[in-house]
Amino acid sequence: MAPAMFTATVLTMFPEAFPGPLGVSLIGTAWREKGLWSLETLDIRAFSDDRRGFLDDTPAGGGPGAVLKADVVARAVDSLSGPRRPLLYMSARGRPLTQARVKEWAQADGIVVLCGRFEGVDQRVLDSRGFEEVSVGDAVLAGGEAAAMVAIEACVRLIPGVLGQAESLGSESFEDGLLEYPQYTRPRSFEGLDIPEVLLSGDHKKVAQWRQEQREKTTRERRPDLWSAYLANSQLKGEKARGE
Amino acid sequence: MAPAMFTATVLTMFPEAFPGPLGVSLIGTAWREKGLWSLETLDIRAFSDDRRGFLDDTPAGGGPGAVLKADVVARAVDSLSGPRRPLLYMSARGRPLTQARVKEWAQADGIVVLCGRFEGVDQRVLDSRGFEEVSVGDAVLAGGEAAAMVAIEACVRLIPGVLGQAESLGSESFEDGLLEYPQYTRPRSFEGLDIPEVLLSGDHKKVAQWRQEQREKTTRERRPDLWSAYLANSQLKGEKARGE
Repeated sequence: MAPAMFTATVLTMFPEAFPGPLGVSLIGTAWREKGLWSLETLDIRAFSDDRRGFLDDTPAGGGPGAVLKADVVARAVDSLSGPRRPLLYMSARGRPLTQARVKEWAQADGIVVLCGRFEGVDQRVLDSRGFEEVSVGDAVLAGGEAAAMVAIEACVRLIPGVLGQAESLGSESFEDGLLEYPQYTRPRSFEGLDIPEVLLSGDHKKVAQWRQEQREKTTRERRPDLWSAYLANSQLKGEKARGE
Repeated sequence: MAPAMFTATVLTMFPEAFPGPLGVSLIGTAWREKGLWSLETLDIRAFSDDRRGFLDDTPAGGGPGAVLKADVVARAVDSLSGPRRPLLYMSARGRPLTQARVKEWAQADGIVVLCGRFEGVDQRVLDSRGFEEVSVGDAVLAGGEAAAMVAIEACVRLIPGVLGQAESLGSESFEDGLLEYPQYTRPRSFEGLDIPEVLLSGDHKKVAQWRQEQREKTTRERRPDLWSAYLANSQLKGEKARGE
């Protein structure tokens, strides 16, 4: 029996925001033509039990804005059938998206992604249903839809057969905790700027060494957090190798 | 004279991925009906000078995949007229998106966002045109389009008049370096889970204290990086206040 197809289900007040980037290029072809994954949206509005269709109410304890009601979200989640999948809630309060988590999700039968609006979602439904809160960058969004697309795209591209041979999965940012090296291609000279000499040398060892130096330099400059983790990890490996 | 309208210009190989989430809710209404901002896409494919329409070539120094050519991107960027705007390139190699940067961008005449594909973009055009490389989460995407939507949405919601009074800009995650407190709303009891008593007490001081404790606890647990920065900052303020 073939394994179940990866299905991304989005709980949103704005199904019309989809598929957006999920419908284009190899990701889109893998969905629409190859049937390697599937995307479905579920309109949260349909799960109001209020005859006026209200979904939100004022925050307990006061404060501006409105909060998406626990019972509405619960009914939407509970309406899903099929195998149990990881539940994500895109939120500025979440833990940052990481490639390690994405890899785990990509191996599941799919993911369910809740997109918030207003001031957020009643915490009780997030706790009771076991949502994992995930953030994409330290910025505040109007809703979770764009963030959901980021999470789904990151998963789907890892499904076997989705990316062609032209695209690589082998050597990528975050694989070993370092950012990628800079890329160059023809022409050799662009507006007086040359491709770094070493890349044209044909000396594979020197190329690899230069790229590693670039990765370390870029990570140190742009991501001191990753750099610290990398150093700690390298030290640990060294100690293990020496039997300490 | 009215100030220039904020314009987000996206350089992409897949204009059909837009507007996605940028076309819905208050963000979409602010664009289409109120004219408070504008979105335009520029198809990178149109800027190839190759009669077969090639945009990419093999990486200098070897390795899998393909690299978007410097001259193609340069022609696309140089075709833009009007006031100079910040240039963003969405990339896993970038610095993480922050609310502080978003606020600066939101006050510009707009932003230009380059969406990469393949293994990336020739570094020389990023350097020569002054692109700022920006990442959304430590995960690898198939292209920059979903990430671009995150960056644009974060900016646009800060433009005066875009969000209604129901949505607040006052108290938000990242404003003071802490994540937001959890939210609750009616009903008082949901599946046996009650709204925390203090939020129903009517004691504003206690509510504020509880929420601050929650913010500190959540930030400590989920974002040790933000928590360290917050502590360092609090200490600095304390020292300044004491004239040290």
